[in-house]
Amino acid sequence: MAKLLDTIHGPQDIKSLTAEQLNQLADEMRELITVSVSRTGGHLASNLGVVELTIALHYVFDFVKDRLLWDVGHQCYAHKILTGRKDKFDQLRQEAGLSGFPSPAESPYDAFSVGHAGTAISTALGMALGAQYKNSDEKIVALVGDASIVNGLSFEALNNIGLAKRQMLVVLNDNSMAIDVTQGAVAKFLAGIRLSHTYEDIRKTTSRILEHLPVFGRTMEGALENFKKTLRMAISPSRLFESLNIPYFGPVDGHDIRSLIDLFTAIKELDRPVILHVYTKKGKGFTPADTNPRKYHSTGPFELNGEAGVSAVPGKRSFTEAFGDALASLGARDDKVVAITAAMPDGTGLNKFRKSFPARYIDVGIAESVAVDIAAGLAKQGFKPFVCIYSTFLQRSIDQIFQEASLQNLPVVFCIDRAGVVGSDGPTHHGMLDIGFMRMLPNVEVLCPADEQDLKLAMEYAAGAACPIAIRYPKEDLTEGGLAAELAVPYHRGKSVFVRRGENTRIAFVAVGPILSEALRAADILKEQGVETDVVSARFAKPVDTAIIDLFAQDKTVIIAEDHSLSCGFGSATLEEAVRAAAASDDTVMQRAIGRTVLLAGPDGFIPAAARHRQLAWIGLTAERMVEAVRQIAAGESVGLWRQNP
Amino acid sequence: MAKLLDTIHGPQDIKSLTAEQLNQLADEMRELITVSVSRTGGHLASNLGVVELTIALHYVFDFVKDRLLWDVGHQCYAHKILTGRKDKFDQLRQEAGLSGFPSPAESPYDAFSVGHAGTAISTALGMALGAQYKNSDEKIVALVGDASIVNGLSFEALNNIGLAKRQMLVVLNDNSMAIDVTQGAVAKFLAGIRLSHTYEDIRKTTSRILEHLPVFGRTMEGALENFKKTLRMAISPSRLFESLNIPYFGPVDGHDIRSLIDLFTAIKELDRPVILHVYTKKGKGFTPADTNPRKYHSTGPFELNGEAGVSAVPGKRSFTEAFGDALASLGARDDKVVAITAAMPDGTGLNKFRKSFPARYIDVGIAESVAVDIAAGLAKQGFKPFVCIYSTFLQRSIDQIFQEASLQNLPVVFCIDRAGVVGSDGPTHHGMLDIGFMRMLPNVEVLCPADEQDLKLAMEYAAGAACPIAIRYPKEDLTEGGLAAELAVPYHRGKSVFVRRGENTRIAFVAVGPILSEALRAADILKEQGVETDVVSARFAKPVDTAIIDLFAQDKTVIIAEDHSLSCGFGSATLEEAVRAAAASDDTVMQRAIGRTVLLAGPDGFIPAAARHRQLAWIGLTAERMVEAVRQIAAGESVGLWRQNP
Repeated sequence: MAKLLDTIHGPQDIKSLTAEQLNQLADEMRELITVSVSRTGGHLASNLGVVELTIALHYVFDFVKDRLLWDVGHQCYAHKILTGRKDKFDQLRQEAGLSGFPSPAESPYDAFSVGHAGTAISTALGMALGAQYKNSDEKIVALVGDASIVNGLSFEALNNIGLAKRQMLVVLNDNSMAIDVTQGAVAKFLAGIRLSHTYEDIRKTTSRILEHLPVFGRTMEGALENFKKTLRMAISPSRLFESLNIPYFGPVDGHDIRSLIDLFTAIKELDRPVILHVYTKKGKGFTPADTNPRKYHSTGPFELNGEAGVSAVPGKRSFTEAFGDALASLGARDDKVVAITAAMPDGTGLNKFRKSFPARYIDVGIAESVAVDIAAGLAKQGFKPFVCIYSTFLQRSIDQIFQEASLQNLPVVFCIDRAGVVGSDGPTHHGMLDIGFMRMLPNVEVLCPADEQDLKLAMEYAAGAACPIAIRYPKEDLTEGGLAAELAVPYHRGKSVFVRRGENTRIAFVAVGPILSEALRAADILKEQGVETDVVSARFAKPVDTAIIDLFAQDKTVIIAEDHSLSCGFGSATLEEAVRAAAASDDTVMQRAIGRTVLLAGPDGFIPAAARHRQLAWIGLTAERMVEAVRQIAAGESVGLWRQNP
Repeated sequence: MAKLLDTIHGPQDIKSLTAEQLNQLADEMRELITVSVSRTGGHLASNLGVVELTIALHYVFDFVKDRLLWDVGHQCYAHKILTGRKDKFDQLRQEAGLSGFPSPAESPYDAFSVGHAGTAISTALGMALGAQYKNSDEKIVALVGDASIVNGLSFEALNNIGLAKRQMLVVLNDNSMAIDVTQGAVAKFLAGIRLSHTYEDIRKTTSRILEHLPVFGRTMEGALENFKKTLRMAISPSRLFESLNIPYFGPVDGHDIRSLIDLFTAIKELDRPVILHVYTKKGKGFTPADTNPRKYHSTGPFELNGEAGVSAVPGKRSFTEAFGDALASLGARDDKVVAITAAMPDGTGLNKFRKSFPARYIDVGIAESVAVDIAAGLAKQGFKPFVCIYSTFLQRSIDQIFQEASLQNLPVVFCIDRAGVVGSDGPTHHGMLDIGFMRMLPNVEVLCPADEQDLKLAMEYAAGAACPIAIRYPKEDLTEGGLAAELAVPYHRGKSVFVRRGENTRIAFVAVGPILSEALRAADILKEQGVETDVVSARFAKPVDTAIIDLFAQDKTVIIAEDHSLSCGFGSATLEEAVRAAAASDDTVMQRAIGRTVLLAGPDGFIPAAARHRQLAWIGLTAERMVEAVRQIAAGESVGLWRQNP
């Protein structure tokens, strides 16, 4: 059968379709998303939930002129398919393919590259104010999920939404995911609404809204007032938003395309910011995702065995799993250990701890700032909080880490997963800045374990420390059996591990974290070529080991490799310490050695989505690049900088 | 007349006083605060407003065992006076004196060092959870103002407050300051309550609460329910907090000590988190502050001319004023210029712009994150937003700057006042990290003008730039006539200014921002000693000028001075660039010169409150220190590191 989807090349092509055809289109898009994501991996459940919503939005609005702001943005697949990117959809999250998130570089239909939560209402408010200044009639739409609306940034935007004296529509896409994840008050409030409304109620709400809002022309304030009065008698959920002085409509069925189109058509004429509360079902239409949306929130490739079941492609053991096991062990040994996350129990490996110690497991929802402050309060009470947040999202808590952890010198442990390049999630999700952010903060120590055993030892050190500790590790499989027997020594403050010491070496590799494996491989290759090298695992990005600084005094050329931005990274920290030590010693040999330092690290730019090993190769974090650098040094050639991105 | 206050040495001494005596005590404390702050400077109006509230809290609670968490914390003066620090109160905000903020180092009555908004409820929640785990019966009290409760962090804490299944009291100290400052929805909501309540209503509310809450013993859920039902008929303000499922009591009179004592006594027995809404009058009891609380929010020393008037001690022209004038000029020339602040129109010098272009002035309240996202939305719409936030508070927006400005490469200008050490506000307020935070972000340029003309030129460059720009400048008076005629050249991307070029110089000073004045003074002193030096004003902390890197190739010893943390600062950036250039050139002269670099910058620690010039001296940012470094280099002595704090 010919597919309707084949005839859709842009949003304009859907505007002539009938309601029945739009429903057929939704089914076809859902199938495309499911089949394609089973091959590429990606966010499945959330995308299946917003197909009708996306179709209805594009039917009513013209998002070349109008603006659509996505929150987090991983639910934009249907939007990409409708806006001319259908044919590249099989390249989702692949090198040189489509981003898994909105991307202005790909399409004029995407306003912002996003991946973090809470930005949709905020940036939409900015764009609405811009439209207000310009007196343009473009419509502004922000689409935000129930999990994102609890973020402090969303609240700050809602609190300031009255600045916009013009149209601005906030669609609250409520798939009740926040209810699973958190016990926050807003989630409970929304759950209460959900429980008190039957499907029949929801249908009635839709018609009630439509009755009171004229479809054509600008609605007067009076009509809105009248509407609110009528609605208030029947439905109660507006309380929260009304107290923020934001007109609230809903809840309505987010899978009823026809009604959504009517609603958007009516509501878009209102000349003030309003909220439309829409119910959707995460994973709709794909049974496994439907029944286990959390599992299919973000997934690697999987096998489709008909509608009934799927089998995930099994992966190797990861740092995340190793961390989860290690924290559960610590929790069993010490009842002061508390685990805190911000809506990422799966991604941060906390499920085991959560199951074993539910009372000492805290999930605050997508609210990274309060996660850190709760940890600080707990530490003040003598507990040992482990805050488990991805590197990129921990950026949202820098000021809390500064004031509540660093300034108070409280023993909070920051477990920073997804440090370094992250592969297919791309620029919004890389963790290339955490060493810089953390090492600037007084009292904080930054640990970079290299393998599973090293991670365990780092965590034991952290559990016993009296200061804030950051432990960073990448989204990476573990090397079976570990990297080196030499790592089997406990952590001591600011002490690195010399994994290899060659004889009369002129070259020392200093590796930060698991990139040690490449340094060791480089050393092996060089050894075969007759070149002896030292290989050091830095362990501490802060404080820098004096034994590393001593390498300069020994007139060695130090090659520092780190899966982090060069800017403010460990190499930078080493140079700071080295010149301080050299100035204090007036050692000219050392001074010259400092100037010979080679830094292999991330560029001052954004690394596109691709497999992680490809990204590492681009920034020069491979044994081959290290070997080449040594050859260049020996030959008196200039050591080239990192390779460019493709 | 003998003063009651003379008999008060700690909170226990007030517990036997009568209501009348407590009121007398309040008057005496208010007088002490006013007289003392007129001499030391400090936060006046907010402290005068919470005297009775503070007395009542200490009367009812025992804050050695119980916990009192202040939000922002600048309103803690009465608390300090009552908790054994009365005799040092004349040393407020002075070197080796009392901090202007809570400080655990000073007193066990202070739980956290604070100075940033939104942390009280968050950390209190963490401490309540700790108490819950320990099953201790300590009472937890958070005191938060109406200006702070709108911060996203406060909201995240309120949304998660249900995690605490025990006593926790949030006192909302509503002095209606947020209403002056912002037009946010919560402020309007609170204003609506205020307008709809007469003083008589407020008194009735108090008795109603007391009627329904048993003073002794634990209150049952039933009593609370009954109370809520009764209250709902009479008073409506609970809507916002009720929708967050937090029992709300109030509004009540925050100056009626006797009633407050009764209320705290009753409410402290409730076994769940509750909010008590208290009305206070900022500046109460001191007529000038009473009528102009904004002026006396944070003040320098002033003269007390009886009750009727005061005259401020006039100050010199500051960077803040210069910035305010320059932005107003830009605004007059270009109607795309929009100014955005987060509740700091006075502190950031925006009042002139605000008066001239009210429509293009946006104050979002204490909500730094959304300020940045609104700016990004405006930039996307073709506007030129200038985001004006203190360095220390901009830390709360790092992730928004990362994702919404840096990743999108949008031309938002960040005007970073209070960069560097800030004097008497101390550790919570220093701006020692902004170069590091900003230079890590791709696309962002970081400008450090040295004097008023330089600041103007930097702003003109920023206004024309197509990327995010950060401009940093300190809380500092301007040198009349400027620092050097050589600075009178427009900004060019990554171009420094060579202010002095000596003949055959071996030494080059590179100064970041106004510390240039000290470098010039050092050069003068050295010249008299027959030593010629180069003096460079870096202008750009990012990108680093290649002409500065060339200094190494010229075999000069480079002394870099910056009013910023050494860690991740401009010196660090210079070393990164220098070793990259040296590795690419294999120039041994250059390599040795790099190793000789001397970094004069802030320590890896917190610099205590004192006069700014004292703080600069401690960290070695004086001409004398620079001269000494040059002497040490010439003598082949080791260059000592920065001087220690006292």
